[in-house]
Amino acid sequence: MTHFMDRLVVAIQARRNPVCVGLDPRRALLPSTICDADELDNRRVADAYSTFCRGVIDVVAPLVPVVKPQSAFFEEFGAPGIDALASIIAYARSRGLIVILDAKRGDIGSTAEAYARGLLGSSEFNSPENTGVPDSLAADAVTVNPYLGGDSLRPFVDVAIARHCGLFVLVKTSNPDGGLFQDLEADGRPVYAHVAAHVESLARETLGGHGYGAVGAVVGATYPDQLAQLRATMPQTWFLVPGYGSQGGTATDVAGAFDDRGFGAIVNNSRGLLFAYRRPEYMDRFGPARWQDAVDAATRGMIAELRAATPAGNLAPR
Amino acid sequence: MTHFMDRLVVAIQARRNPVCVGLDPRRALLPSTICDADELDNRRVADAYSTFCRGVIDVVAPLVPVVKPQSAFFEEFGAPGIDALASIIAYARSRGLIVILDAKRGDIGSTAEAYARGLLGSSEFNSPENTGVPDSLAADAVTVNPYLGGDSLRPFVDVAIARHCGLFVLVKTSNPDGGLFQDLEADGRPVYAHVAAHVESLARETLGGHGYGAVGAVVGATYPDQLAQLRATMPQTWFLVPGYGSQGGTATDVAGAFDDRGFGAIVNNSRGLLFAYRRPEYMDRFGPARWQDAVDAATRGMIAELRAATPAGNLAPR
Repeated sequence: MTHFMDRLVVAIQARRNPVCVGLDPRRALLPSTICDADELDNRRVADAYSTFCRGVIDVVAPLVPVVKPQSAFFEEFGAPGIDALASIIAYARSRGLIVILDAKRGDIGSTAEAYARGLLGSSEFNSPENTGVPDSLAADAVTVNPYLGGDSLRPFVDVAIARHCGLFVLVKTSNPDGGLFQDLEADGRPVYAHVAAHVESLARETLGGHGYGAVGAVVGATYPDQLAQLRATMPQTWFLVPGYGSQGGTATDVAGAFDDRGFGAIVNNSRGLLFAYRRPEYMDRFGPARWQDAVDAATRGMIAELRAATPAGNLAPR
Repeated sequence: MTHFMDRLVVAIQARRNPVCVGLDPRRALLPSTICDADELDNRRVADAYSTFCRGVIDVVAPLVPVVKPQSAFFEEFGAPGIDALASIIAYARSRGLIVILDAKRGDIGSTAEAYARGLLGSSEFNSPENTGVPDSLAADAVTVNPYLGGDSLRPFVDVAIARHCGLFVLVKTSNPDGGLFQDLEADGRPVYAHVAAHVESLARETLGGHGYGAVGAVVGATYPDQLAQLRATMPQTWFLVPGYGSQGGTATDVAGAFDDRGFGAIVNNSRGLLFAYRRPEYMDRFGPARWQDAVDAATRGMIAELRAATPAGNLAPR
């Protein structure tokens, strides 16, 4: 097995872009060809999410290195939702995609360890040949929340390293009120900078072959100044950057997240890609029946935007 | 439907104690009569957890007002684990227990709303007559993490209020390294005090009939000074107090969490009650086959300890 960050770099070099497609299915936004929005039964909604996400994966697997399913949207539909999520994760991995499960978990001791064991992939699901439906979640990486302190992150780090997986710790989030506690000034710097320093120490401890640790950070696209500052102070920490597109982040905003090789960050977009068929610029070109063509066009558009703003060698088209 | 805090007060007045039994099943600690610790299949472990937790509920339902299942231990076993958790929550509610799901979720916008909808009970499960197995989780309250700021808590508050449910926001956690970020000093007070002030404002906004809001706080038993200080600065906020027993918190440590009526706090113990049959003082009296008698004895012992340390009227035996 290969270190998580080295697998990530290989996937980025193969597709030559840092796009992460957020798998955030929403019942009310699904193409009418997939699901009746009035459908209430958990199993049927979960099946529709599975069909939809597999359709997205079929489009984006040749284009991008990473997908990020949002656990909440599946959890909402109980055990059938978890079944759908497990099968989508396994399917994405079977198509060569790196899967980051956005679960934002955080707890202590043996509880944190149970989360890590339940969410991060055992090696049997790391094989591209595996397309069966597992009965556990098995992602390549998971997002975690640092509020409970260093001993709450440690069990996640230990399980991630043992399973050749990764973590992304929330540092500076993309939402408007994210600063309420994250931006409080303590000892001359904001709380998120204290979290950043701790995450950087975990990254240094878990280095892979390309200078980045298995422990990364979530840093929002909507705060470009802080993003560039954190890039400078966290040289060994890979960034997962949410907030691109519908939350207002642009390719210029995220350019500061990359090193000069074009490594160091992946940039997520969820609704802007998944539900592109509803965007004004695609609505006329593609109706709901051609929603996959809209995903394809929007994903290629985002790739082009990021390449234009970050002209590093590994992100240039061959 | 009744306000969450009023339901909680009624349950406490009926049992005359503030004990919360943490439902943290651990495969390796289960009585041998329930499960072979070497069992690996997710469905069988989930079934064993269900059998064990129902057995605990049968013992504690007449004794205590609240149980708190730990989501991580069920999530670890995929969809079968979620099925077991849903059925345990419904069973506990059917036995008249208040159920707080310890999930420590935190996210933004529509994602936070999806978590809240997926975890908090719709009214159909509030009926004691309902003993069927739902296919969604439906707890009376859920624990949440504040790191993402005020707009991340808002969707949880809105769903909780609409469904007559409650929240407990992490403020000061019980783990040894909980202070790494929570204790950072900002504007002359620790970060957790800033979180506490925000939670108190949410409590004031969601008041029930006994002077407490539907939004409560998690404050660890292992920091008794901070617990008493927070009680003084958060008069409208009900506390969920973890850390009693195996983490080192005592009845004296938590006495400061109560108001003079004996309201304002519930005190959680998980391993010390669930796996009491393994404790030296019970091991000889009760073997593994009488593990339920050990749960009964340990729960009655904890009730007596809390009553002795907090001699308020509502906690005195009739």
